[in-house]
Amino acid sequence: MNTSELIYFDNNATTPLDERVLESMLPYFKNDFGNSSSSHHFGKRINNAVQKAREQISSLLNAEPKEIIFTSGATESINLGLKGCAIAYQSKGKHIITCKTEHKAVLDTCKYLEQIGFEVTYISVKNDGIIDIEEFKNALRKDTIIVSIMWVNNETGVIQPIEDIIELTHENDSIFFTDATQAVGKIPIDVYELDIDLLSFSAHKFYGPKGIGGLFIKRGIKVDTQLHGGGHEYGLRSGTSNVPAIIGIGKACEIALEEMKVNSEYVKYLQNELEDRLLQIKGTYSNGNKSNRIYNTLNICFPSFDANFFIDKYKNIAVSNGSACTAALVQPSHVLIEMGLSEEQALGSLRLSLSKKNTIEEVNELINIITTYLKR
Amino acid sequence: MNTSELIYFDNNATTPLDERVLESMLPYFKNDFGNSSSSHHFGKRINNAVQKAREQISSLLNAEPKEIIFTSGATESINLGLKGCAIAYQSKGKHIITCKTEHKAVLDTCKYLEQIGFEVTYISVKNDGIIDIEEFKNALRKDTIIVSIMWVNNETGVIQPIEDIIELTHENDSIFFTDATQAVGKIPIDVYELDIDLLSFSAHKFYGPKGIGGLFIKRGIKVDTQLHGGGHEYGLRSGTSNVPAIIGIGKACEIALEEMKVNSEYVKYLQNELEDRLLQIKGTYSNGNKSNRIYNTLNICFPSFDANFFIDKYKNIAVSNGSACTAALVQPSHVLIEMGLSEEQALGSLRLSLSKKNTIEEVNELINIITTYLKR
Repeated sequence: MNTSELIYFDNNATTPLDERVLESMLPYFKNDFGNSSSSHHFGKRINNAVQKAREQISSLLNAEPKEIIFTSGATESINLGLKGCAIAYQSKGKHIITCKTEHKAVLDTCKYLEQIGFEVTYISVKNDGIIDIEEFKNALRKDTIIVSIMWVNNETGVIQPIEDIIELTHENDSIFFTDATQAVGKIPIDVYELDIDLLSFSAHKFYGPKGIGGLFIKRGIKVDTQLHGGGHEYGLRSGTSNVPAIIGIGKACEIALEEMKVNSEYVKYLQNELEDRLLQIKGTYSNGNKSNRIYNTLNICFPSFDANFFIDKYKNIAVSNGSACTAALVQPSHVLIEMGLSEEQALGSLRLSLSKKNTIEEVNELINIITTYLKR
Repeated sequence: MNTSELIYFDNNATTPLDERVLESMLPYFKNDFGNSSSSHHFGKRINNAVQKAREQISSLLNAEPKEIIFTSGATESINLGLKGCAIAYQSKGKHIITCKTEHKAVLDTCKYLEQIGFEVTYISVKNDGIIDIEEFKNALRKDTIIVSIMWVNNETGVIQPIEDIIELTHENDSIFFTDATQAVGKIPIDVYELDIDLLSFSAHKFYGPKGIGGLFIKRGIKVDTQLHGGGHEYGLRSGTSNVPAIIGIGKACEIALEEMKVNSEYVKYLQNELEDRLLQIKGTYSNGNKSNRIYNTLNICFPSFDANFFIDKYKNIAVSNGSACTAALVQPSHVLIEMGLSEEQALGSLRLSLSKKNTIEEVNELINIITTYLKR
């Protein structure tokens, strides 16, 4: 297969790198290769570039630069945020609330926290994928230290009502963490306005490089270090700074801020086309709340359909049957099962996630392929 | 300052990226941007490239590909290896042995392990930087689960007698971990022959990219997961694989294996020139055992010299006064202090670390600058 023929609708797994992002990184792979922690002038100059990237990120989120910690990606950010915060506040309580349809990085971190003595309540979602707010309200306790609710679901694109959740969380004097991996760079985020305490993200979900992500930690929120060593990142995350990738995530944030409106309108148009026409196929329906859904993600259940078989059959198509992080397993998506789908329905659903690089021609071709396949 | 005028003798902080390594990475920033965990054909193809890189690394170390875990760098590898192993074997004992001159990533991880109930013995070094073997022997106990001794010291280049240490460690039924960050890619390593249990490394110390490293874990050695999530890296290290960097570390290992002999002879020649001529300056001496020292690292104490002042004065020179990881602190190097130097002597010492990219002209220029500076 030639990549140039590839029809790529798996942008929630990873996006192509924006050419301008790569361009911004290249000098730091070449002449500007220094270690940003070195005390010589060369190192200091590299460090200035790292700090500029921190500013670019904080501008996108309306945070302070010092509230941004660089990590190797969202999984590390989630581990640092949840474990670090749980350990830091364990004297206040040992109860955590999250949701059953979170990403595995949150769910598995919570399972680990249960093993070391924390108690975790997993809140259900309704059939449309939105968290059950009543169940959430009832779960809040005096000893609830952290509430962790993802902003945008990676499999369905469903946007949780995080404003309401934050209000209830703070009324309860608990800390609000959100895994915003599928939200950052795609939709406007104002951590200050929403009063978010912790927020995790990864560059490669919005045209940045792999291997770099961040954790926003509101000033005053305590987080215990998870990676010990030289004391980088204000002592919270040791390890030589991944300078080229940091420059890349900064640039990706700058571009996202400038072009969010144009991109979202364009991708929304493609999404509408794709969904409207696929739903004309008899017996086909969308999973997840359509009015609270991000503009780039569709999750569609087809009749008498085996998503894995389909994915394996078409070598030039990249679509998915769930999170890439658990793609090796031929198991029905835990997200769809929690939304009330049967195993068969879950295994018959495709996640189609779009990007600014997709074209209407690709949309047409994907529709043709799926329609032809289903007719046989 | 223009980077092209830079005289860079700080290669133990980070090395320039080999052009061939960057070349190997570029396709994975462009067309081959996929997520290696995706189940579609595009993802599988990317995963094949990741597995090839794992083979390139295992060839360099004489390990099995499945014994290599990708991480974000040596600090993460050390944290995973030491914490993961300590937790996994805590029912056998809670005692750990390390050395006072280890890198901060080991020392700080050990301090953390002390906080959660482990006991750590820190072994002294002799004046030449070599571990005190008698003290080490006496420190071994029935409940010693891990011995962690670095292979090559990052500040002095001193090579520890790890063969002897491994033998004593295994006679004691303990696990041997080595931070080989300054050894991998520079000197021959055969983990099978030496019967090493765990070994950490980072690509950017041998002409590979930042943000990627690895942990060798001998088959059968148990390590508890530190980053929870989708179950990447055989369940030991979750998070989307940093594909371009993985390709890069693979290529860096391939080049290191092919060119190690030539490079080491060339750099050794530069090191000899630099050292012989600097030691002609009255009152100047080398820190560390000269016959057990890696070919690229010098640590030299100059009379009535302030290393920090010198580093700050010459904008086009990159040399260091210790580990880059603690460069922000104007403190004497803990390594030199443990070797018996006074504060003044430690603060009067420079680390000069060379690479295959250095030239004899740069060596001459550095000698001239230092000599002129000292004469004033």
